[in-house]
Amino acid sequence: MRENRPRRKGRNTAARIPSRQPDYRHLCHPFSPQSVFSEDEVHSLHDTALRVLQELGMKILLPEARDIFAAAGARVDGEMVYIGSDIVKAALQSAPSSIRLRAGNPDRDQTYEEGTLLFMAGAGCPNVTDRERGRRPGSREAFRESLKLCQSFDVIHMLGPNTEPQDVPIQNRHYAMMEDQFALSDKLVFIYSRGSAQVHDCFEMIQLARDLTAEAFDQDVWCYTIINTNSPRMLDKPMAQGIIDFARAGQMSIITPFCLAGAMAPITVAGALTLQHAEALASIALAQLTRKGAPVSYGGFSSNVDMKSGAPAFGTPEHMKMQIGAGQLARHIGLPWRSASGSASNTPDMQSANETTMALWGGLMANATVLIHAAGWLEGGLTFGYEKFINDVEALQTLAEMCVMPTATEAEIGYEALKDVEPGGHFFATRHTMDRYEDAFYAPLVADLSNFGTWEAAGAQRSDQRATAIWKQVLNDFKPPASAAGTKERLASFIERRIVEGGAPPLD
Amino acid sequence: MRENRPRRKGRNTAARIPSRQPDYRHLCHPFSPQSVFSEDEVHSLHDTALRVLQELGMKILLPEARDIFAAAGARVDGEMVYIGSDIVKAALQSAPSSIRLRAGNPDRDQTYEEGTLLFMAGAGCPNVTDRERGRRPGSREAFRESLKLCQSFDVIHMLGPNTEPQDVPIQNRHYAMMEDQFALSDKLVFIYSRGSAQVHDCFEMIQLARDLTAEAFDQDVWCYTIINTNSPRMLDKPMAQGIIDFARAGQMSIITPFCLAGAMAPITVAGALTLQHAEALASIALAQLTRKGAPVSYGGFSSNVDMKSGAPAFGTPEHMKMQIGAGQLARHIGLPWRSASGSASNTPDMQSANETTMALWGGLMANATVLIHAAGWLEGGLTFGYEKFINDVEALQTLAEMCVMPTATEAEIGYEALKDVEPGGHFFATRHTMDRYEDAFYAPLVADLSNFGTWEAAGAQRSDQRATAIWKQVLNDFKPPASAAGTKERLASFIERRIVEGGAPPLD
Repeated sequence: MRENRPRRKGRNTAARIPSRQPDYRHLCHPFSPQSVFSEDEVHSLHDTALRVLQELGMKILLPEARDIFAAAGARVDGEMVYIGSDIVKAALQSAPSSIRLRAGNPDRDQTYEEGTLLFMAGAGCPNVTDRERGRRPGSREAFRESLKLCQSFDVIHMLGPNTEPQDVPIQNRHYAMMEDQFALSDKLVFIYSRGSAQVHDCFEMIQLARDLTAEAFDQDVWCYTIINTNSPRMLDKPMAQGIIDFARAGQMSIITPFCLAGAMAPITVAGALTLQHAEALASIALAQLTRKGAPVSYGGFSSNVDMKSGAPAFGTPEHMKMQIGAGQLARHIGLPWRSASGSASNTPDMQSANETTMALWGGLMANATVLIHAAGWLEGGLTFGYEKFINDVEALQTLAEMCVMPTATEAEIGYEALKDVEPGGHFFATRHTMDRYEDAFYAPLVADLSNFGTWEAAGAQRSDQRATAIWKQVLNDFKPPASAAGTKERLASFIERRIVEGGAPPLD
Repeated sequence: MRENRPRRKGRNTAARIPSRQPDYRHLCHPFSPQSVFSEDEVHSLHDTALRVLQELGMKILLPEARDIFAAAGARVDGEMVYIGSDIVKAALQSAPSSIRLRAGNPDRDQTYEEGTLLFMAGAGCPNVTDRERGRRPGSREAFRESLKLCQSFDVIHMLGPNTEPQDVPIQNRHYAMMEDQFALSDKLVFIYSRGSAQVHDCFEMIQLARDLTAEAFDQDVWCYTIINTNSPRMLDKPMAQGIIDFARAGQMSIITPFCLAGAMAPITVAGALTLQHAEALASIALAQLTRKGAPVSYGGFSSNVDMKSGAPAFGTPEHMKMQIGAGQLARHIGLPWRSASGSASNTPDMQSANETTMALWGGLMANATVLIHAAGWLEGGLTFGYEKFINDVEALQTLAEMCVMPTATEAEIGYEALKDVEPGGHFFATRHTMDRYEDAFYAPLVADLSNFGTWEAAGAQRSDQRATAIWKQVLNDFKPPASAAGTKERLASFIERRIVEGGAPPLD
């Protein structure tokens, strides 16, 4: 999977027309992984991370997690756990390098491994914004709309908490979020790790909605969670519990230290990555000690802060260098991994486009398995923007097109067409063009290629302004996928009972 | 120069602070060149291009150029020239793979060869636009402003005709453009190929302004021109004359077929590149037949058109695939080469940012030696936008930062800092941070990292709106470089005399 030559999934070498046959649902990295560190330097980072775990330790707030480490031979002193490199090495031996992810539709299943390229929309945003209704707190309606947007574009491969239904009480919110994910999408579902009660509720809802036996659920990966460490060197209760619960159930944890260089992490790329790596290794170890072979993803979301204001920055050179360095560390330990794009901009402008697109390319250079926050993420994650989402999907579709390489057969080169056109002439009417013109090129979603006069006469709209009509049309045209049928009914009595019982308050 | 490991020009392996020491004036490609075609396919494209030149021929409108080809053994039939592959092969043998480019300041000199990375601003725009004065035809004032903008950012490496002083009569325009380039910048100067009279005027002005003997001028490359073929398969009089005049004077021609797939070129990536390659090879051959060893750059600016409207598109997947394929062809023949970024957008919006930035990355993947139209290019080249320029410079500076890789020395990793900070603490006050915070990170030019409330209170400005104040400040603060001193005086009597003589009307 590491050859310099681009992989050619779906490539058609026969002289068939059309040649452009992208499959946005299944992407493989088109470019070879790049590096910012030498092999020796990667070893130094890895070895220093092992030393951090062994000598400085992790503060782990959940007693059960400390007990698991202690049983494996780690030294535990109060809340501090000192993890020997033998424990980490054994964990890296048993963690799977390839994970099959199951969706509500077999054509949405994914193989999560090195070389796969997945995109997820912006997530975790307390607010949403669009040009018609303005900036407002996330609600169940907004969450549903974001799901419809994500479902409508094949280039978004898995679901996430784009925004939270803050109008649903926290102890019942996971019922609403699960019900909506099944009712509006057939993509891989997300679960927040907010304690065992919520997580087990969600596992049960997956079995009901997807109509699975407990055994069938256990045999495959039907959902995932995001585990954020509290950098530096701390793992809080809900996160540790999430690692344990997901490992026990054979479901996927994506480990994501959020190491902002200069704030919660050292100011250097090498230092921030060393801390990220140590925290990820500790979390992976906890998963593997809980259940050998548990599906767990390496990951990182390291960037820098603005040293004047302390504000997080995204799409910066430091962000990209950390992405590429994190990719080297992921390949060093042989695990698939998560990276992230993102933007600090407060509005869908050129800054926001450049930040997100730079970090998308950083993720490509790093050969990240999944790029999270790849569409719609504004204000460093405080707001999910509808117009930003549409414009970012254009960028994602452009990158997805790069996953299918052109061919150079005799028919594609078209010597006969070259012969037929006089010097200074044009190719519009040649057979070679006529045979291919309908789908030879990527058709833009929001880009406007008309000339200045036409564009001005049509109202001189910027791409963020044009995006408003597009998301409205998408929501208006939305049809639930086949897998949605009956899910609400299959979940109804469970949800009703659990709400009557008081729901599941989150673990502090 | 082709190893997979990023080149580390200017890298500092000692444990010196600060570690971030970018040199925007001298960049080397940070990423290994990627490919869209197999080696066999590259051979097919190259061989088909040779066959096109031999069997289909080029229409060459300038008699002198046809005579040069005929003298070398090419078959000439009316205006058609059929160029044997022996002629092309000999030309590729004698064309230099490394070209030293001389500026007005030794620190601005460049080595134009594989691995070098140069950026040039948007060029050839009949209009300019900014948020204060609106869209208007290019004037001498606008040309001067664009030169000041280009001179003020080190990440712009050479000058170009960003816009044209259309208020200066065409037969005298080159005097104004040369005078202004010397008076406002110390970067490599550009000359339009509009006939021998203008070109020889410009060569003479370079010797006057740079205070060079004829011999010193001939021994180095002090300027460049862009040669556009009239695709398909035609070379017009001014362009053929330009190749000949620049080759004779030992100055650099950058060969640039403008092959829009589906319009003036075949609709496929492979077909458009084959045509581009054939036209470039014919032009390189003309340069080498004129003077063996003449400095000539391979190049291409191939993209696709919108098949609905026929409008050119930029930053599309097809554009990027052609960039990467062109890079393979350039390496196949062993020459440095020019690619281009660009945007079809009519305004500095997200579309414009994504198009330009995508094609910048396409150029990085292709390891283009110079990326033209990299900042400020709107409307597919019809307008040079000041706010777009500022936002694009941010993207260029971000990429320039990627040319310096991080280090992973013990000091950079900062184990002691990791030890000093408690779990859950922060690194703001550590020695490791304090020693580095001033220049650890790239400082944004136009990106605003403030939070939503602060941004809103400050007027809720988009990045294109903020850019207005920036370009105004840059123009206001502008100081001519040292090399400008006396150039106007040294040129005055020559220009005065030539204008009295009637100037130099362009060759038709």
